[in-house]
Amino acid sequence: MITAGAITLGCDYNPEQWPPHVWQEDVELMAEAGVGLVAINIFGWSDVEPRAGDYDFERLDTVVDLLHSRGIRINLGTGTASPPPWLTTRHPEVLPVAADGTTRHPGGRQAWCPSSPVFRRYALALVEQVAKRYARHPAVALWHVSNELGCHNALCYCDTSAAAFRTWLQQRHGTIDALNAAWGTTFWSQRYGDWAEIQPPRAALSLRNPGQVLDFHRFSSDELLGCYRAEAEVIRRHSAIPVTTNFMVTAHIRNLDYWQWAPHMDVVANDHYLDHRLGDPVAELSFAADLTRGLAGGRPWMLMEQSTSAVNWQPYNVAKTPGQMVRNSVTHVARGADAICFFQWRASPQGAEKFHSALVPHAGTDTAVWREVLHLSAVLGRLAEVAGTRVVADTALVFSWPAWWSAEGEGRPSEAVGYLDQVHAVHRELRRLGVTVDVVAPGADLSGYRFVVVPCLYAVSDGDAQALNDYVAAGGHALVTFFSGIADEADRVRLGGYPGAFRDMLGISVEEFFPLLPGDTLELSSGGRAGVWAEHLHLRTATAISTYTDGPLPGVPAVTRNAFGEGTGWYVATQLEPAALRDVLSQALTAAGVARTGPESDGSLEVVRRCGGDRSYLFVINHGTAEVEVPATGRDLVEDRDITGSLLVPAGAVRVVREEQPR
Amino acid sequence: MITAGAITLGCDYNPEQWPPHVWQEDVELMAEAGVGLVAINIFGWSDVEPRAGDYDFERLDTVVDLLHSRGIRINLGTGTASPPPWLTTRHPEVLPVAADGTTRHPGGRQAWCPSSPVFRRYALALVEQVAKRYARHPAVALWHVSNELGCHNALCYCDTSAAAFRTWLQQRHGTIDALNAAWGTTFWSQRYGDWAEIQPPRAALSLRNPGQVLDFHRFSSDELLGCYRAEAEVIRRHSAIPVTTNFMVTAHIRNLDYWQWAPHMDVVANDHYLDHRLGDPVAELSFAADLTRGLAGGRPWMLMEQSTSAVNWQPYNVAKTPGQMVRNSVTHVARGADAICFFQWRASPQGAEKFHSALVPHAGTDTAVWREVLHLSAVLGRLAEVAGTRVVADTALVFSWPAWWSAEGEGRPSEAVGYLDQVHAVHRELRRLGVTVDVVAPGADLSGYRFVVVPCLYAVSDGDAQALNDYVAAGGHALVTFFSGIADEADRVRLGGYPGAFRDMLGISVEEFFPLLPGDTLELSSGGRAGVWAEHLHLRTATAISTYTDGPLPGVPAVTRNAFGEGTGWYVATQLEPAALRDVLSQALTAAGVARTGPESDGSLEVVRRCGGDRSYLFVINHGTAEVEVPATGRDLVEDRDITGSLLVPAGAVRVVREEQPR
Amino acid sequence: MITAGAITLGCDYNPEQWPPHVWQEDVELMAEAGVGLVAINIFGWSDVEPRAGDYDFERLDTVVDLLHSRGIRINLGTGTASPPPWLTTRHPEVLPVAADGTTRHPGGRQAWCPSSPVFRRYALALVEQVAKRYARHPAVALWHVSNELGCHNALCYCDTSAAAFRTWLQQRHGTIDALNAAWGTTFWSQRYGDWAEIQPPRAALSLRNPGQVLDFHRFSSDELLGCYRAEAEVIRRHSAIPVTTNFMVTAHIRNLDYWQWAPHMDVVANDHYLDHRLGDPVAELSFAADLTRGLAGGRPWMLMEQSTSAVNWQPYNVAKTPGQMVRNSVTHVARGADAICFFQWRASPQGAEKFHSALVPHAGTDTAVWREVLHLSAVLGRLAEVAGTRVVADTALVFSWPAWWSAEGEGRPSEAVGYLDQVHAVHRELRRLGVTVDVVAPGADLSGYRFVVVPCLYAVSDGDAQALNDYVAAGGHALVTFFSGIADEADRVRLGGYPGAFRDMLGISVEEFFPLLPGDTLELSSGGRAGVWAEHLHLRTATAISTYTDGPLPGVPAVTRNAFGEGTGWYVATQLEPAALRDVLSQALTAAGVARTGPESDGSLEVVRRCGGDRSYLFVINHGTAEVEVPATGRDLVEDRDITGSLLVPAGAVRVVREEQPR
Repeated sequence: MITAGAITLGCDYNPEQWPPHVWQEDVELMAEAGVGLVAINIFGWSDVEPRAGDYDFERLDTVVDLLHSRGIRINLGTGTASPPPWLTTRHPEVLPVAADGTTRHPGGRQAWCPSSPVFRRYALALVEQVAKRYARHPAVALWHVSNELGCHNALCYCDTSAAAFRTWLQQRHGTIDALNAAWGTTFWSQRYGDWAEIQPPRAALSLRNPGQVLDFHRFSSDELLGCYRAEAEVIRRHSAIPVTTNFMVTAHIRNLDYWQWAPHMDVVANDHYLDHRLGDPVAELSFAADLTRGLAGGRPWMLMEQSTSAVNWQPYNVAKTPGQMVRNSVTHVARGADAICFFQWRASPQGAEKFHSALVPHAGTDTAVWREVLHLSAVLGRLAEVAGTRVVADTALVFSWPAWWSAEGEGRPSEAVGYLDQVHAVHRELRRLGVTVDVVAPGADLSGYRFVVVPCLYAVSDGDAQALNDYVAAGGHALVTFFSGIADEADRVRLGGYPGAFRDMLGISVEEFFPLLPGDTLELSSGGRAGVWAEHLHLRTATAISTYTDGPLPGVPAVTRNAFGEGTGWYVATQLEPAALRDVLSQALTAAGVARTGPESDGSLEVVRRCGGDRSYLFVINHGTAEVEVPATGRDLVEDRDITGSLLVPAGAVRVVREEQPR
Repeated sequence: MITAGAITLGCDYNPEQWPPHVWQEDVELMAEAGVGLVAINIFGWSDVEPRAGDYDFERLDTVVDLLHSRGIRINLGTGTASPPPWLTTRHPEVLPVAADGTTRHPGGRQAWCPSSPVFRRYALALVEQVAKRYARHPAVALWHVSNELGCHNALCYCDTSAAAFRTWLQQRHGTIDALNAAWGTTFWSQRYGDWAEIQPPRAALSLRNPGQVLDFHRFSSDELLGCYRAEAEVIRRHSAIPVTTNFMVTAHIRNLDYWQWAPHMDVVANDHYLDHRLGDPVAELSFAADLTRGLAGGRPWMLMEQSTSAVNWQPYNVAKTPGQMVRNSVTHVARGADAICFFQWRASPQGAEKFHSALVPHAGTDTAVWREVLHLSAVLGRLAEVAGTRVVADTALVFSWPAWWSAEGEGRPSEAVGYLDQVHAVHRELRRLGVTVDVVAPGADLSGYRFVVVPCLYAVSDGDAQALNDYVAAGGHALVTFFSGIADEADRVRLGGYPGAFRDMLGISVEEFFPLLPGDTLELSSGGRAGVWAEHLHLRTATAISTYTDGPLPGVPAVTRNAFGEGTGWYVATQLEPAALRDVLSQALTAAGVARTGPESDGSLEVVRRCGGDRSYLFVINHGTAEVEVPATGRDLVEDRDITGSLLVPAGAVRVVREEQPR
Repeated sequence: MITAGAITLGCDYNPEQWPPHVWQEDVELMAEAGVGLVAINIFGWSDVEPRAGDYDFERLDTVVDLLHSRGIRINLGTGTASPPPWLTTRHPEVLPVAADGTTRHPGGRQAWCPSSPVFRRYALALVEQVAKRYARHPAVALWHVSNELGCHNALCYCDTSAAAFRTWLQQRHGTIDALNAAWGTTFWSQRYGDWAEIQPPRAALSLRNPGQVLDFHRFSSDELLGCYRAEAEVIRRHSAIPVTTNFMVTAHIRNLDYWQWAPHMDVVANDHYLDHRLGDPVAELSFAADLTRGLAGGRPWMLMEQSTSAVNWQPYNVAKTPGQMVRNSVTHVARGADAICFFQWRASPQGAEKFHSALVPHAGTDTAVWREVLHLSAVLGRLAEVAGTRVVADTALVFSWPAWWSAEGEGRPSEAVGYLDQVHAVHRELRRLGVTVDVVAPGADLSGYRFVVVPCLYAVSDGDAQALNDYVAAGGHALVTFFSGIADEADRVRLGGYPGAFRDMLGISVEEFFPLLPGDTLELSSGGRAGVWAEHLHLRTATAISTYTDGPLPGVPAVTRNAFGEGTGWYVATQLEPAALRDVLSQALTAAGVARTGPESDGSLEVVRRCGGDRSYLFVINHGTAEVEVPATGRDLVEDRDITGSLLVPAGAVRVVREEQPR
């Protein structure tokens, strides 16, 4: 929970994994570290309901009271994240089923079908008990519904899910004819005569119907949101305390459309872990934080989980180097977080996550990790006054889960085009250019932005496309990258020349895609290089910024600019190499008059500003190995000293300057 | 359908995907493009039979009449390629089952078991209706049974398939003892006491019985042929119009033994798409065309499907460059096709193939693709007189699907040896040498050929081996490559020294295979290099053409030549690098007195001759980026001008010369 | 079976695959080759029991008598390795089930669930028949239970296995509370209330419970051992002849804990095949032989299977070069084997292993393979006096299957850390250093060793850890490598600083692991390089041998040495490159006073000594391409000549010197 006037430090806590004598030590160490919010009962189900209907809250009561006795507030889990073995033994029909029809079994977590009424009945009975028992406990500050909903079980293909899918489709499409039209079932003899004929997109011998697959994604996201809403409804009957669940805005989770979820959260919370499978994990962190802020509508949000050091679920679980955890944490704060929480308090000796780092490592508190936790606590303490302020940005990036799902559909032009890769590429270069970016939903009000980037927005509805086109017509500046505006929200290709949704605004028409084979590259007249993709593009009203000088389309424009109404539409028809993309972005930013928050860098320097009331705070995070100098005047909260004109930030350090001249 | 005196231009047409007002525009554009044959009702089942037994031909009638009104002939699909959802809902038992026992579901196409009597009953009922209704319609020129039979559903492991497999085995083997002998069931305690004990080669924990796997391949091909024959029989009760189905002679389809199928076709038709997953897609096109001509017994054949540009089912769907579609088309004509048809007329905005190119692209007719279609139409028009002529070749290549299946069996000496790779390697070098190749079945009459290549013919029956050996004894020249003649038609290794089937003819005896590890190469005394494979080979009556100078077998012959009867047998015991293989082939061609149709090239020049009556036509296709000069005298039909002595073909162009001195 | 005063040459023989007239030729060739022991009836079930309960031993009787007539002794299989088709047709419930719930079918071998009472009933009935019939036949020298138990079917997840697993767990843990404690079921809400709730670790959506997975491995090994014991019990009711089964101590088999199995064998037998998927197949052979000797408690053992040349189940099945088969065989003898047997006598023309080499190849006896068999027979004949002697070593390597299973569990710090790789790395460098190594179980009596290496012993019980620590305290020298001593036998992490089990003995404490990304390397102060792994290590009482000079932990010790009691503990905290590891091992060996059996080499020279009575034999195997000189004085049995001071061993040759001065 977010506290006025404080950046909260918090963590997940699993006292059930430890004997009671450890609990006392735990709360004392929590107090030492300034832990202000503790999540408990996340996986408590088998502990508090050891047999069906037989509740035992004795241990949980003790822990709640113990935490309360030290003034630590509680983020109370409903405990429904993983059903106990007795439930799946009694009701094997709640187990999820994979696309090939094979069942997924207990032994890990989330072994339940999101559409199962049986699971929901048991889960809500537990929630009712927990909510009634703790609703008025003074320590409880936040309700935590389930945990990482859909992390593993988002897509279930069982018969129960099939029936729920049919009901959902009836709601969405109304008539079977409408569904047939939306899915294009005239193709390959797929016309449905009755709702009962419809199945989830189970394993098939060939490419599956894209409309069916897309709707199944929407359905699956909605079903899990339904689980959340059902639990929240039970809680709210008993409690006025805020309710949330932890999102997973991160590179490897894509099955939840959080734009649909966010309005149902009392506060937006996110779990984020550095992903060393990516080329630039730190840039991805910044993007995820910006997207989370977008989901929160710009309001402060909570980082509900991160790790103090290594995780255990990547192939090579890289530990954090000295200072990195503080930098990661302050980056989240810089980008809008008012609470920095961790999974987990104390490293477990057993279970599937026993090698996941914690505030208290296996080796105990005489460790670098623990000392960095204490340091982080001190830093966050000094940043208390930042709480409640907001990040300011005049650039927006349009992001869409349905576009992601459909852009990566089977049978697409090139498997080398991944949605998130394209989004990351644009965000990463904007970040290197010192630009702060808000991430917004398609159709969002763009009027407050000088510049809007639209990477790979493959599918977009008429209305959402119109919103962007209107924004440009009214004087806005937009930069669209290839494979955007191709289809509508049902994944129906817009005819008459790509990108149908933005063709007029961009002043171009593309007659054909030219995906490249791996390793093939293109040279541009501007001197840069590109790869992966090209397009047979015609200028209508646009002008060419650069053209291909080799490859299959010599002389064809690769980057264009178009005056449209009062504004300007830029188009990038290929996958530019980073420097070339940065160059185009830079031109567009300049034309749009975007103010940069910080200087251009290789990505190792991060400068973000939060403002509120009559104050502004400049966050400077130096991820690099050399000292950097940034113009600033004011009070550095981290070092507690005045800065006049120039802020020197040592390698690896963070600084937060309360600016003398607030923005 | 093949028309006397014309090279037909045709396409698949899916009017059910479009509103009727588009149909009128379609036929007008078809007329403009000279489209002469249109395939319809390929996936019409759910449209014409929206409920079981409830037929609605109104829209199809309209389309048929509309096409007829413009003089466009019809290739009428039986519509059985994919069952409608109501059928698989009512009869889930028709769904195919994978080797691991999991079901494959609707959502794509071909979700039916080839052995299902239920599916066949419904399918034939539809065929009966279609055949009765349209048998006498003057526009119908060809019957198109189902579509790409076995593209996805060739191998079904369900219980229905198991029962059909047992019946098929009884037909093939007669007694259970004969089956035990054929499969070698004394190995690993697999002796069957009763037919009822036999299963398809379902997922097992270890290597499976090779005889069982091979017979299951034969059975599966036969079952699908049975589907074709059952539909054709229904049609022929009502109609005397030719019947066919579209083969898939292409690199990624291997489950149908088309040598068995071809005799049942009134005209042979093939679908071919450039496969950019291969090293040399254009060379593969030439091979596929030669094999299709072989299936047609040398008679003209139809290219039933190709794409105007990119497909959508490869990882990176490369578009065609200017002129490439015409070159591909004319290559097919050069190699015997008298009809050039496309999937598809108009690019669909929906469905799994929405990114598959078409004659009318998403962007419409103001496109390079449409202009190239018009150009192709003009070129084909000028080639009308070629129709009915035949390709002439004095080199044959022996090709076998059962050899493919067994050569790539589990537990083979080297997974680096792929059957089609080996075949392609030999064909590609012959093509580069300017040699035209007929592809023939094992056991074919070889008496008309000067030279026969036998790449990787792992399994061959006694009779078929004898045919080759007799051919050589009678004065023929044969070149056999490694892993040929090893086993008989039941995959029983021939004992006494490899390659048992051809040992005497080749005058060698191999005592052991020496597969190489990836990256290992061998140097040859001839100066070339080789890899993948070597053999401990002994000369019996042969002489060594080259030997290894390093590796595990220094001094051992790598390439040999043997005088056998009146002829000569060459053997290549290793995988020669292209230049080295070309060198050996060149020696053998010279010795055999093979006439080359065109000059040697790097593969970018393709020269083929078609002859008929008292005329001959020299096709010259320049796939390269430089002008080439080819000796020719006659009339260039493409440019409509006389050629005297030398034909200059610009980069990317095609020429067809009616020769002054016919061959 | 091991014969006093002889090194037995033997083979598997499958007369059922051949007509009787071949049998006569077979025994004559066996006599020529000096084959002394022949394994038959290994896969005889479908031949000797063609219908349930209907036994037909006529052919087996004939073969037994024929072999006996030539004085060839018999290793008689119980024939239960693969059930005949009639059994699985009648009882499909014996088929094994994969983790995803799909069934594995007949068609290969071992298609049976190890826990199936139905399978066992039929199998024991057959064993009873075989044992009764042949128990008193004078030719039978050894009983061969089943074959390669668990090669494919070790892990079965069917409901029968689930029930057996529960029974096994009750035996192991006694109470459900004890099980919950052992598995840490407080994590992720997995607490069991009843035994009936427990399942095998079937396919799950997320990481599975490590304790459950580990116990399932133990259970699976025990179930297969139970199959062995049940058959052996039946045999022993009828026969006093030794009973065994063939182990698979080799790189790709890991599901059987042979330390538990070995006490139940009357003689230890192993199957070993060179694995060309490994970087150093020959070094692996030496390790496997040492481990097999360890399982035999140092007593002579049998090599039950190897190949004369290529196998058929690797991707690229490399043939053996001249002399290699003799070198491989003599290496096994050098490391304790008193019998050298082969799969298989005669290469089969059919079945899944038709391309597996044999003593009699497809090409017959005029082959290099057959000639090398005759040469091997001669060499083994000259080594007869070695039989019964033992290998001497003063270095031990601790090896553990449960450590293997748990070290490679899901969710571990780095997937780049493979248990066997780590073991091989240490053994390989010791071999290169000329050191002979005994492989011992955790907890073994180490008092006879000067030096003990403990690679990657991730999990170890308190008692077994104590044994090592006591050994050092009493004056021993131990070298432990990273990821050792981390967990106990239930895979519970030992808290308080890694490696908990050996922290005091090593005088260090590690607070955190630092896995490296692929390609990242570390430089050491000693000049060597390392990769894969590093640790944030603190010296307690140890001293640093080398430290990192770059990477995430500059200045942190990478290799340490600690005086502990009367002994010394060495620790290697990273994956040293071979030269660096060899350097550390060399220092430790010198400090420990280990005598080297042979000179240091690049691994191509192998020197091992066997001793017994008052004699000692120096085995020298030169795998290299240059002659080597080794100090020796005595009688070379291979060449039958005296050696004085220096033994010259040509490239590729083997020598065995009866030493003048026995050790």
